[in-house]
Amino acid sequence: MNWFLKKKKEHVLFTLPLPEPTDLLDRLREKFPDIDFEYIHFGTLETFRNPETIPRDTIAGKTVLVTAGALPASPADCPDLELIHFISAGINHVQKHPIYTNSDIPLATVSGIHGPPIAEWVLMTTLLRNREYEKFYEAQKEHRWLKYPVKGARDMVQQRIGILGYGSIGRQVANVSRAMGMEVLAYTASPKTTPESRKDHGFVVPGTGDPDGSIPSQWFSGTDKADLHNFLSQDLDILLISVPLTPQTHHLISKAEFEVLEKRRTFISNIARGPVIDQPALVEALTNGDIRGAALDVTDPEPLPADDPLWDAPNVTITPHVSAQNAQTLERVFQVIEANLERKQKGEKLINIVDRKRGY
Amino acid sequence: MNWFLKKKKEHVLFTLPLPEPTDLLDRLREKFPDIDFEYIHFGTLETFRNPETIPRDTIAGKTVLVTAGALPASPADCPDLELIHFISAGINHVQKHPIYTNSDIPLATVSGIHGPPIAEWVLMTTLLRNREYEKFYEAQKEHRWLKYPVKGARDMVQQRIGILGYGSIGRQVANVSRAMGMEVLAYTASPKTTPESRKDHGFVVPGTGDPDGSIPSQWFSGTDKADLHNFLSQDLDILLISVPLTPQTHHLISKAEFEVLEKRRTFISNIARGPVIDQPALVEALTNGDIRGAALDVTDPEPLPADDPLWDAPNVTITPHVSAQNAQTLERVFQVIEANLERKQKGEKLINIVDRKRGY
Repeated sequence: MNWFLKKKKEHVLFTLPLPEPTDLLDRLREKFPDIDFEYIHFGTLETFRNPETIPRDTIAGKTVLVTAGALPASPADCPDLELIHFISAGINHVQKHPIYTNSDIPLATVSGIHGPPIAEWVLMTTLLRNREYEKFYEAQKEHRWLKYPVKGARDMVQQRIGILGYGSIGRQVANVSRAMGMEVLAYTASPKTTPESRKDHGFVVPGTGDPDGSIPSQWFSGTDKADLHNFLSQDLDILLISVPLTPQTHHLISKAEFEVLEKRRTFISNIARGPVIDQPALVEALTNGDIRGAALDVTDPEPLPADDPLWDAPNVTITPHVSAQNAQTLERVFQVIEANLERKQKGEKLINIVDRKRGY
Repeated sequence: MNWFLKKKKEHVLFTLPLPEPTDLLDRLREKFPDIDFEYIHFGTLETFRNPETIPRDTIAGKTVLVTAGALPASPADCPDLELIHFISAGINHVQKHPIYTNSDIPLATVSGIHGPPIAEWVLMTTLLRNREYEKFYEAQKEHRWLKYPVKGARDMVQQRIGILGYGSIGRQVANVSRAMGMEVLAYTASPKTTPESRKDHGFVVPGTGDPDGSIPSQWFSGTDKADLHNFLSQDLDILLISVPLTPQTHHLISKAEFEVLEKRRTFISNIARGPVIDQPALVEALTNGDIRGAALDVTDPEPLPADDPLWDAPNVTITPHVSAQNAQTLERVFQVIEANLERKQKGEKLINIVDRKRGY
């Protein structure tokens, strides 16, 4: 062994609010025989956003911490720590902690793991609207062989999907859309004019997504109404909303935007957050038939009150924020951790590192 | 213009049981200014399988006939005819006609055009079973925000799909499955051991399918039970049945096959023909929970009688043979005709030519 490459031994501590997932941990132990792994079932799922503090003695000597939110009291308690790996995609819940505000310890998330299940939800709900699936489901319940010609049912070939926010979810929707023969148009806040800027630098579930950003036939960008309206007027058959909710994206799709979308009667799919859409304006657009329909995994507010008119708007599919639901989540979390441990060992750049100023 | 390449002028006659689709025909006229096109609205959709005969004077001088089934009375009536292009995928309805039995005029079909819509049906029905979509649909009708954790809902990543019959439909299912992160295993009657033998030589809707046969990670083949059982025992999460119905494939999936499939509780999707599955054996497998579920666009018989126990079997989706339903069908038919006219002009090999002995 090359003496110069010899590294300090890595000590990884897991403090997760669940019993040890032994299969997943054993896979890491096998893959990294030189690393020392310790697992503590720490706290509960209910309190993981306001967790107890990890005692100084427990964290002493550890180089990597894997956590749902539990942290040492302060940077002084963990001088050996070189990486804190969270098991969630966002870490708003620790943004006021001294480790966040007063240290430079790299913080990693598992952003990127939700692309495949959410993309599947988008496709499923789009296809069942295209085919008026529920009519056949109701007929089946009544044992009826329904010879019903779905008027103007088009398959996806040559349809245009506009993807508003080209992150891990948008990229996997793009990937499957392309396989269906569709044309993909991407929209991002900042311009992506170089091949490098179009790459996905975060975690990508192997075999999915658009790591190189090579799928869209056209890229659009901007942060003002004119830029957005230009994108929305590109004869989109489907508009996927996959932007984070920020003050800038609140009610991003409102009355003026529906007026652009009604030219093509664009179908809308929202897997982002409810308030990105001005919901009364959406109900009106659906009621008037200005748009072909909508699939919503998110609403404003959640849960959607029983008397909200959105429930009965025509051509709408509503599910209760379940598009990411998945038995593979923990497995994927461990894939991200594995990828980062491997990069750390090789001295490569880590993925999914939080930009403390930006907050994600 | 090279004198040697000068061809005899092409005269194309359409005799279709529908009004002239002017847009589509104009596209051909624009693309092939040297070709003479004539369109006759001939017969009706109701009688196109037993059509009137095309008079000798009408076909005289024509080099290409596009037809739903109407033909000249005999080969002697159409000495100039160099190609008969049908607008259906199968041509069982003319197999006893003298033109079929006593001539060598090449016969082309539009096989291959149904890949995209049927593949979309397969994905939609598989995904909605994975996610128990109907529970959310029923909840929406009642304005209920259903916090229902779908037990063990897995997304498609790393799932294995076995495709029994790797034709145009199977290939497009493979294409989209790969984009979803799945592993694809193909089964064909005759062995496909060379790259050439794995190619799709028929029409492929541009941007779809698997023209090179490069998607499957493994290929299986054979015509006996042992070969089939070997394929079915490859830990398949999903089995797609996409073989033609022949005496050999009648009840191909029966009691013995369900006993193999129950090890993995394989989900079954049938878009081929009902009798490929032994339906009482399927009902039993579903009732016992031996398989995870089934999606059936075809049944035995059709329509499925109202008192058939299949309607109420658990975890089954039944639709009334609508998976190919599509407003783009005629457009695709014209794409195949265009492809063959182009090949004919260039002196290239035509696609979708019927092997008269094999019957397709």
